[in-house]
Amino acid sequence: MTYDWITFTTDYGLADGFPAICEGVIARIAPAVRVVHVTHQVPAQDVRRGADLLAQAVPYLPSSVHLAVVDPGVGTRRRAVAVAALGGVLVGPDNGLLVPAAAALGGVVGAVELTEVRLEPVSPTFHGRDVFAPAAAHLALGRPMGELGPEVDPATLIRLPAPVTSAVPGRVTTEVLGADGFGNIQLAATADDLTAAGTTPGRAVHVEIGGRSLQARMGRTFADAAPGSAVVLVDSAARVAVAINGGSAQSIFATHPGDTAVLLVERH
Amino acid sequence: MTYDWITFTTDYGLADGFPAICEGVIARIAPAVRVVHVTHQVPAQDVRRGADLLAQAVPYLPSSVHLAVVDPGVGTRRRAVAVAALGGVLVGPDNGLLVPAAAALGGVVGAVELTEVRLEPVSPTFHGRDVFAPAAAHLALGRPMGELGPEVDPATLIRLPAPVTSAVPGRVTTEVLGADGFGNIQLAATADDLTAAGTTPGRAVHVEIGGRSLQARMGRTFADAAPGSAVVLVDSAARVAVAINGGSAQSIFATHPGDTAVLLVERH
Amino acid sequence: MTYDWITFTTDYGLADGFPAICEGVIARIAPAVRVVHVTHQVPAQDVRRGADLLAQAVPYLPSSVHLAVVDPGVGTRRRAVAVAALGGVLVGPDNGLLVPAAAALGGVVGAVELTEVRLEPVSPTFHGRDVFAPAAAHLALGRPMGELGPEVDPATLIRLPAPVTSAVPGRVTTEVLGADGFGNIQLAATADDLTAAGTTPGRAVHVEIGGRSLQARMGRTFADAAPGSAVVLVDSAARVAVAINGGSAQSIFATHPGDTAVLLVERH
Repeated sequence: MTYDWITFTTDYGLADGFPAICEGVIARIAPAVRVVHVTHQVPAQDVRRGADLLAQAVPYLPSSVHLAVVDPGVGTRRRAVAVAALGGVLVGPDNGLLVPAAAALGGVVGAVELTEVRLEPVSPTFHGRDVFAPAAAHLALGRPMGELGPEVDPATLIRLPAPVTSAVPGRVTTEVLGADGFGNIQLAATADDLTAAGTTPGRAVHVEIGGRSLQARMGRTFADAAPGSAVVLVDSAARVAVAINGGSAQSIFATHPGDTAVLLVERH
Repeated sequence: MTYDWITFTTDYGLADGFPAICEGVIARIAPAVRVVHVTHQVPAQDVRRGADLLAQAVPYLPSSVHLAVVDPGVGTRRRAVAVAALGGVLVGPDNGLLVPAAAALGGVVGAVELTEVRLEPVSPTFHGRDVFAPAAAHLALGRPMGELGPEVDPATLIRLPAPVTSAVPGRVTTEVLGADGFGNIQLAATADDLTAAGTTPGRAVHVEIGGRSLQARMGRTFADAAPGSAVVLVDSAARVAVAINGGSAQSIFATHPGDTAVLLVERH
Repeated sequence: MTYDWITFTTDYGLADGFPAICEGVIARIAPAVRVVHVTHQVPAQDVRRGADLLAQAVPYLPSSVHLAVVDPGVGTRRRAVAVAALGGVLVGPDNGLLVPAAAALGGVVGAVELTEVRLEPVSPTFHGRDVFAPAAAHLALGRPMGELGPEVDPATLIRLPAPVTSAVPGRVTTEVLGADGFGNIQLAATADDLTAAGTTPGRAVHVEIGGRSLQARMGRTFADAAPGSAVVLVDSAARVAVAINGGSAQSIFATHPGDTAVLLVERH
């Protein structure tokens, strides 16, 4: 199986040319492959945020090798892996970054440790260039995964602890996943949790995150709140989000991923 | 008519993967089409700035479907439209974002409301992914515009009020369009306004914006002022701009789009 | 000779659409050519940093026309040039930006001044669009360099002064090249300088930059220091770098390119 596309997700930033260097490595091995840059602005070394962003993107990306590098353990004994999912292949460090995306692509069906097609000498600090990009390029060309290194038992892949959400009538307790560039705060809770809590459109909801709180209204889109007012909605990734119509909820709450968020739903 | 290119302009930012998700939607529908990312850093929900940036870019872009999303009204009743211009097609919200670019491409020749080729279920908060990207991809493949939804009378397209500029001998009164990454402040005035005010190269000009003022010199390029000094010139988009040679005029004036700017030309 | 790729490095930033405008100019002249964006976030007008970033990237990029624009002298008499190296062609201003990359590509073998294939009228402030991008596109199509303008004696190309490094037993004195997005500070010194100073892995090293100092340890990768502690290593571009495991050395030192850095190696 070959892939026309490699998608690319990192915390490298765009200032220093690191994503382009990896794209160059890919182009030299697999010149016909096209690269979609998912993001290179995952917060530095934030594996969880990277995992979430990738998992939320892959359902919309073409059939691809998904190359992802958020890798605080670069140069240590953490494994470099390729993970086959039903709907694509993922390449990156074995630190939890890839598994949620593999789940979004239908689940893990196999994995190997990347030991074979590296760019030698391998830099101890830039495995994106020397380990992961070459592996992704060879996989895109159709090289069998087994030629990239020894098989890995999928059960041994590192998994991040799942965020904790509980929903009872009147209350959802959940975690912040992150805030986007508009300042919309994405929570781990889903529409099902809102249903369990008994919300209905238009109802008032009290939002508490990190000692700060805000009165909001249940809605479908930003404009369901008055300009400058808060709305709680189900976002485009099917997660509950807190937003300000025409403003930034993040500027009020200054959340960090993993913060506890509580939604108190008005009772009747 | 088919298009080899889709250009893509938003206020999504680059951190959250939203542009890549839309690019993925395009790739799944129209895999051969190539995407040029114009900018994803339009200031959040600043429709006017997005409209200006797009209109200034399109004359240099290849024949394309121009996909643009700066959409504070997402999920409301504002229309989603495709606008045919003489030199290309534009896709985005009907909020004024597209019309200046259509004018730069020779003028509007037709429009439709986008009701047909959506990605269902349509998210109320991410029409870039579910409404606009699919429409752009289908248009690039040559699907007739009429198949995307009902015809729209071009006269009913929302238009932003044009910035106001007046020029009399000795004085140009105009508006700030925006400041670029170098801190060069772009005004709505053009070379014709400078001529009407009676400027000539090398002449002194007094710049007032938002209660701050600065002595500058008329020039052709940045280096026509001494290092650290201000120059007023006609920029590469044929607009009057205020710049500091080797520095940032924006760091002095801290302008916002729409601010009034006055140029007082030294008389002889 | 034709090129399938143009790489593109500037200080334009990503907000204003300038890189896309140049990409559009390329696409209209050479539609089949593919563009790799190396970085558009070179610090504004920092020719040396741009030169370093480009020189460090080119060994990993495919055979290309390397278009680079960091051009504080735009519109003045500085020359616009194409520089042929053994392993590719470079296009940009003659201000020192291109020569280190040409050296990394095997050395300069010829040069011309760009006077012929400009986009008229040439803006005095945006030669990326009107001079450099057209030249890069024509070169990629195989147009002989001699048709782009008169030959330039390579010895007359502007060269930046090389950073100064000295290494004696126990001490390396060198310059800061820059800091990357992770806060890793790259120095001009190389592994040879560390050897000359008598370092060995695990040894303590005292780092002084700009009046601040820090105790660090010689290592191979970030995790060779305890979390939050400093490590001195040879980075992926074969330069000595100062890093904090899980943190930012730049947030401590706040370096600028060209700052003097001293490494004092613990003696036995």
